Amino acid sequence: MPIITLEGPKIANLDTRREFIRDLTDAAVKAYALPQEKIIVILHENSREQVGVGGELLVDKG
Amino acid sequence: MPIITLEGPKIANLDTRREFIRDLTDAAVKAYALPQEKIIVILHENSREQVGVGGELLVDKG
Amino acid sequence: MPIITLEGPKIANLDTRREFIRDLTDAAVKAYALPQEKIIVILHENSREQVGVGGELLVDKG
Amino acid sequence: MPIITLEGPKIANLDTRREFIRDLTDAAVKAYALPQEKIIVILHENSREQVGVGGELLVDKG
Amino acid sequence: MPIITLEGPKIANLDTRREFIRDLTDAAVKAYALPQEKIIVILHENSREQVGVGGELLVDKG
Amino acid sequence: MPIITLEGPKIANLDTRREFIRDLTDAAVKAYALPQEKIIVILHENSREQVGVGGELLVDKG
Repeated sequence: MPIITLEGPKIANLDTRREFIRDLTDAAVKAYALPQEKIIVILHENSREQVGVGGELLVDKG
Repeated sequence: MPIITLEGPKIANLDTRREFIRDLTDAAVKAYALPQEKIIVILHENSREQVGVGGELLVDKG
Repeated sequence: MPIITLEGPKIANLDTRREFIRDLTDAAVKAYALPQEKIIVILHENSREQVGVGGELLVDKG
Repeated sequence: MPIITLEGPKIANLDTRREFIRDLTDAAVKAYALPQEKIIVILHENSREQVGVGGELLVDKG
Repeated sequence: MPIITLEGPKIANLDTRREFIRDLTDAAVKAYALPQEKIIVILHENSREQVGVGGELLVDKG
Repeated sequence: MPIITLEGPKIANLDTRREFIRDLTDAAVKAYALPQEKIIVILHENSREQVGVGGELLVDKG
């Protein structure tokens, strides 16, 4: 049941997404010694108008 | 104040969404003995390119 | 894979928790026409010092 | 590292979003006495078909 | 219904928590022009063994 | 800013937690080509009375 949720910027492309899912899943398999079928990953990709760091929207940073 | 958040695939249509909201709300009303006005439900519907199960994106599963 | 996460106050007891899990799971089974083995529920129970409604901590409300 | 996540309706426009980010960031700076560079805000804006209050979708409320 | 969730370190004391709740609530009232009764804040305070920044647990940073 | 949140069972010990944080961070560094200082990981470890799979609490499964 371990569930890994990412909140991040857009991911470059589908291949990067595939590899990212595999790497996150492998990390959980190792940490919990669970079969990989049990691991769920959810990628929330946010636009630069929806995220602020240091009080400033990403879209306003250079 | 109980808040129920769903992370799931797309929901079939608006009627299914309506009924799902009612059922989740009823479950919380029963568990907490609170009036239904207090219950909030948020449905996050994710594309098949944003979710991985067992190390594989849903979009890559048959 | 649908995942239902609750953010709520403490739940009365283990039996209430059991029934709540079943009811939330049944709601997702119906909405998605998926087998119940696919449904995950996570209950985050928060203390009254960790939740504010209307600008006031629950612990400060009568 | 404090991370503030909002689940809310659509925000009116980019200026409102900017000010909201600043206000949420200021609140965390004050509460934690941390430099503002450490504070992250994520705005999840939900459509009225994805949120239910009191068992009813927002889109169905007048 | 706007819901503000914080993931952060422990908050110093109850008064800081009260003021933080008020400030976050005020920010949402202003952004959405909604009455403050509609705003919910949830504070998830995490131990230093549960958070990593830059690949290192907070508990291992000086 | 990418933030990785885990919802899972208890993690065995502090060393496992350390390694898990590093592995999750490395996965995000690779996917986003960002410096590791930007990556935050939050581990939410849940008791077996707070999680249901297939309609049953983990505490009730063998």
